[in-house]
Amino acid sequence: MSVTYPLGFRAAGVAAGIKSSGKPDLALVVNDGPEPSCAVVFTQNRAQAHPIRWSRSVMAAGGTPRAVLLNSGGANCFTGDYGYETVELAAAAVAAEVRGIRATDVLVCSTGLIGSGGEEFRASVLGGVPLVSAALAADDTTAPAAILTTDSVTKTATHEGEGWRIGAMGKGAGMLAPGLATMLVVVTTDAVVPTAVLDRALRAAVASTFNRLDSDGCMSTNDQVTAFASGQSGVTPTEVEFTAGLLAVCDDLAEQLQVDAEGAGHNIHIMVEGAATEADAEEVGRALARNNLFKAAIAGEDPNWGRVLAAIGVTDASFDPYFVDVSFNGVRLCTAGGPDRPVSECDLSPKRTEVLIELHAGDATARIRTNDLTVDYVRENSAYAS
Amino acid sequence: MSVTYPLGFRAAGVAAGIKSSGKPDLALVVNDGPEPSCAVVFTQNRAQAHPIRWSRSVMAAGGTPRAVLLNSGGANCFTGDYGYETVELAAAAVAAEVRGIRATDVLVCSTGLIGSGGEEFRASVLGGVPLVSAALAADDTTAPAAILTTDSVTKTATHEGEGWRIGAMGKGAGMLAPGLATMLVVVTTDAVVPTAVLDRALRAAVASTFNRLDSDGCMSTNDQVTAFASGQSGVTPTEVEFTAGLLAVCDDLAEQLQVDAEGAGHNIHIMVEGAATEADAEEVGRALARNNLFKAAIAGEDPNWGRVLAAIGVTDASFDPYFVDVSFNGVRLCTAGGPDRPVSECDLSPKRTEVLIELHAGDATARIRTNDLTVDYVRENSAYAS
Repeated sequence: MSVTYPLGFRAAGVAAGIKSSGKPDLALVVNDGPEPSCAVVFTQNRAQAHPIRWSRSVMAAGGTPRAVLLNSGGANCFTGDYGYETVELAAAAVAAEVRGIRATDVLVCSTGLIGSGGEEFRASVLGGVPLVSAALAADDTTAPAAILTTDSVTKTATHEGEGWRIGAMGKGAGMLAPGLATMLVVVTTDAVVPTAVLDRALRAAVASTFNRLDSDGCMSTNDQVTAFASGQSGVTPTEVEFTAGLLAVCDDLAEQLQVDAEGAGHNIHIMVEGAATEADAEEVGRALARNNLFKAAIAGEDPNWGRVLAAIGVTDASFDPYFVDVSFNGVRLCTAGGPDRPVSECDLSPKRTEVLIELHAGDATARIRTNDLTVDYVRENSAYAS
Repeated sequence: MSVTYPLGFRAAGVAAGIKSSGKPDLALVVNDGPEPSCAVVFTQNRAQAHPIRWSRSVMAAGGTPRAVLLNSGGANCFTGDYGYETVELAAAAVAAEVRGIRATDVLVCSTGLIGSGGEEFRASVLGGVPLVSAALAADDTTAPAAILTTDSVTKTATHEGEGWRIGAMGKGAGMLAPGLATMLVVVTTDAVVPTAVLDRALRAAVASTFNRLDSDGCMSTNDQVTAFASGQSGVTPTEVEFTAGLLAVCDDLAEQLQVDAEGAGHNIHIMVEGAATEADAEEVGRALARNNLFKAAIAGEDPNWGRVLAAIGVTDASFDPYFVDVSFNGVRLCTAGGPDRPVSECDLSPKRTEVLIELHAGDATARIRTNDLTVDYVRENSAYAS
């Protein structure tokens, strides 16, 4: 169970022929609850796919979307006016099939090849809407598979509160991810959550989970995280309780996305401690997560602390490189910007790798998740157009 | 001929035993001219090697350095107080050997492994200074080879003005480069060039050449570009003439550095046109140069214009992604943010690859040089500690 784990939702996933493989490629999630609310976080990339542009306009209109249609097999990005019209037609098709839903209640998400979204794509999506609408069920298990691209497994997460639940499904290999890069997530809850609370909670959860998953520094044109509350449980958790639950679900999914990153050999957790501010800690961790020399070293199981210092030295964060300590998997190799133990005392063969950077500039911390840079990463991303 | 192509300079390169291979590893350049001046550009990385720290202090003292000692085989970076003392001792050793030179006239550059700079390193450097000083010659050809690390060829360039000359040598695979990343350059001229003019000209030349060579976004701890004028020719070119000559020499070296980048399959020239400002053009070009998905696509000879738009969409530069045109090797594949010709009409098999991005937001332009992301890049940088 994923998005229908909470009460008040129906979902389905079908094979609509968008993917030439014949695998499932179209999903629909509908919020039937008595007290609906919705919040969405979009990619920060200014190069935005048509479904993002549509969904943004839906949110900007100030209504309360009640459904989200998601397809894999085509990003519908940079496909001209025709591509945007396809989104409008798809939303209208959902409205025609699902009672009580208007076109402007329908968010749309797409993932796949940029530039893919022509006539065949439109025909498959529009032909699939009646199928997926007819398949909607309150105990659905088919939606998570229909949004996958190069993912090797489906990704779902749940949380149980006192009388309320959260369910979620996702696809991708990171907010900023290799290969077919898009991250799509749908989170549902049957708690009673006012729009403003849902929006705050979602932004907080995304900021410390998906936004700190930085597989390769490349931001997708199609990323979208959608949250719906149905209110069907009748329970109103406190904002703190609800945010904690949402955070746990998002963190769980972020971990699954990291582990499934294409071509990765190591899952790297960069822990930055002793920063002057949380923003500094994040900047330092992100600079390391995007440094190819560091990421290639981890692929070679080389605990190269010199590359860590060189990578973070380009940031504007407050610290003195000659005060910094660096540890790999719990073994401190660099103390105060100089060599400590021999690197041979550190074992980087485990797939999970932890790098601890102690800045000694304050009390703030952040964790950034990333992956190593491997031969397989290059192979997958040079052979496969996305 | 390189740094002794102009009059008033002596140089030499020797094997001092710093490299275990026994190859040349210590070079010295001395300015003997009657009207000496000097300008230096350092790495912007805050994680700085000891020779950078020393050379910065020499420049800050306001004197006119007359010599530069350069070693390969060890970066002397993050080697503790011992490493800094080694630099002081090396400068003093040069002063003891070369008539008329004080320790504070001696700039020092190092390149090699971070963390390498212990007792053996010091002994080799100090033992080598008398050797390299004795070998100094006004018609030297040995210095360029002594500063190489993983470079496959020596890099030199010359320029002839009206009665004056510029000579230069360099090492590295880009300012921000793969593998053993440091870029070291020494430029000499026998023109009469006041310090202020030399400094302005050098900063201008570096900004549009070496600083726009962005092989992998990783900035070294040891980069240093040193310029000396001897005044030996007695000719004073105009600032415009001199700057143009210096720019030509730096551009020539930058091209050589790009072509010799480790593990690269394609030399990519990113041309950004129609930007609102030059800073915007540079930001757009650099964002693309650092985008792994784009760089992996080029390795696979896939003219993936969607990845270009996705890569530049994360910048703050002024443009509308839906107005942008993208061409590969002269073939326009994307017009106004949508598909133009089929990608099959574009051939990316030539090693030299040109990507043209037309922003349609103004008249400013910039060119950024970079390389593709290849399996060999990952292999070299995961197997080889630097």
